[in-house]
Amino acid sequence: MRNNVDVSTESPREWDKIIIGIDPGTNVMGYGLIGVKGKKPVIIAMGVITLSKMEDHYMKLNHIYQRVQGIVDHYLPDEMAIEAPFFGKNVQSMLKLGRAQGVAMAAALSRQVPITEYEPRKIKMAITGNGGASKEQVREMLVRILNIPREQLLPQLDSTDALAAALCHFYESSRPVKAAGPKSWKEFVARNPDKVK
Amino acid sequence: MRNNVDVSTESPREWDKIIIGIDPGTNVMGYGLIGVKGKKPVIIAMGVITLSKMEDHYMKLNHIYQRVQGIVDHYLPDEMAIEAPFFGKNVQSMLKLGRAQGVAMAAALSRQVPITEYEPRKIKMAITGNGGASKEQVREMLVRILNIPREQLLPQLDSTDALAAALCHFYESSRPVKAAGPKSWKEFVARNPDKVK
Repeated sequence: MRNNVDVSTESPREWDKIIIGIDPGTNVMGYGLIGVKGKKPVIIAMGVITLSKMEDHYMKLNHIYQRVQGIVDHYLPDEMAIEAPFFGKNVQSMLKLGRAQGVAMAAALSRQVPITEYEPRKIKMAITGNGGASKEQVREMLVRILNIPREQLLPQLDSTDALAAALCHFYESSRPVKAAGPKSWKEFVARNPDKVK
Repeated sequence: MRNNVDVSTESPREWDKIIIGIDPGTNVMGYGLIGVKGKKPVIIAMGVITLSKMEDHYMKLNHIYQRVQGIVDHYLPDEMAIEAPFFGKNVQSMLKLGRAQGVAMAAALSRQVPITEYEPRKIKMAITGNGGASKEQVREMLVRILNIPREQLLPQLDSTDALAAALCHFYESSRPVKAAGPKSWKEFVARNPDKVK
């Protein structure tokens, strides 16, 4: 089965910025890369790293580490966005997910690529406007936003999920910065009672 | 505060085998190294990596990754033993612990160091004969088994916990291999009905 697509026809250094999105899992890890030129995001590549056939846990972790580092070295992304659920079924699965996330993060950190994580709901909201959207709906929106030729789509939805994380990060990092300070005098007083005499 | 001790007076290549033990945590990570010559384990070094002062989560993960890789490159261990609890308070803390374990594992895997993990109870049992032993009891036994001069001990018990993981791995890997095959003809038949005509 095909497990990656390279859509880009431009050389990496023609982009203002390259963002890699990662959807880490313990059986399949998705990845997707977008290039930004001016204010326009363009798909560069997407794919999946299949882990389900590996029985040994450390072999899986090593495979994630090596592959993510290889992808980073190939496409030279400037930033990484990672889909990171904050809640899971049980402590066992969360520990395993944490390890998979950890080795993927180590691969980025070893190349000085800064990481931002996003909850699945946040990504779905950014792409489709609906935090409860299905993976198919997310893919459909990506096809339209990024003009992805349908024949380029992979059967594994993890690849478009990863691409969605990258696009979500693009939206988040390119919108005007929200004022972090108090919105009103009332709020300032409430926050800083000792500063008001 | 002192955060590491190097006891070894021998050069690394005089050992038959070097084992690094890791006790990963999100605030403090302990490490300990033992060298094996013949059948005798000797302490080489131990220490802690303090993370509590770092506010940024990724900076912590990067620090763990860089420091563990630095320790691996310095002492050139042949194997890694990692203390890994299988149960935790909640999914949140397990995800964070999984990430800390993941980056430490990535540092070892990037240098082709094989990893074995041990439950805390298993380590305590191997060192003290009591799976519910306190960290102080574990340290006390290590002082006796490895002849550690008391003035060399660090105040942080994470360092001796890590050393205990390494020693536990030494015991486990040097004892006679248990027969993995069937224990009886009856069991063999039960396992392999197609091989018996």
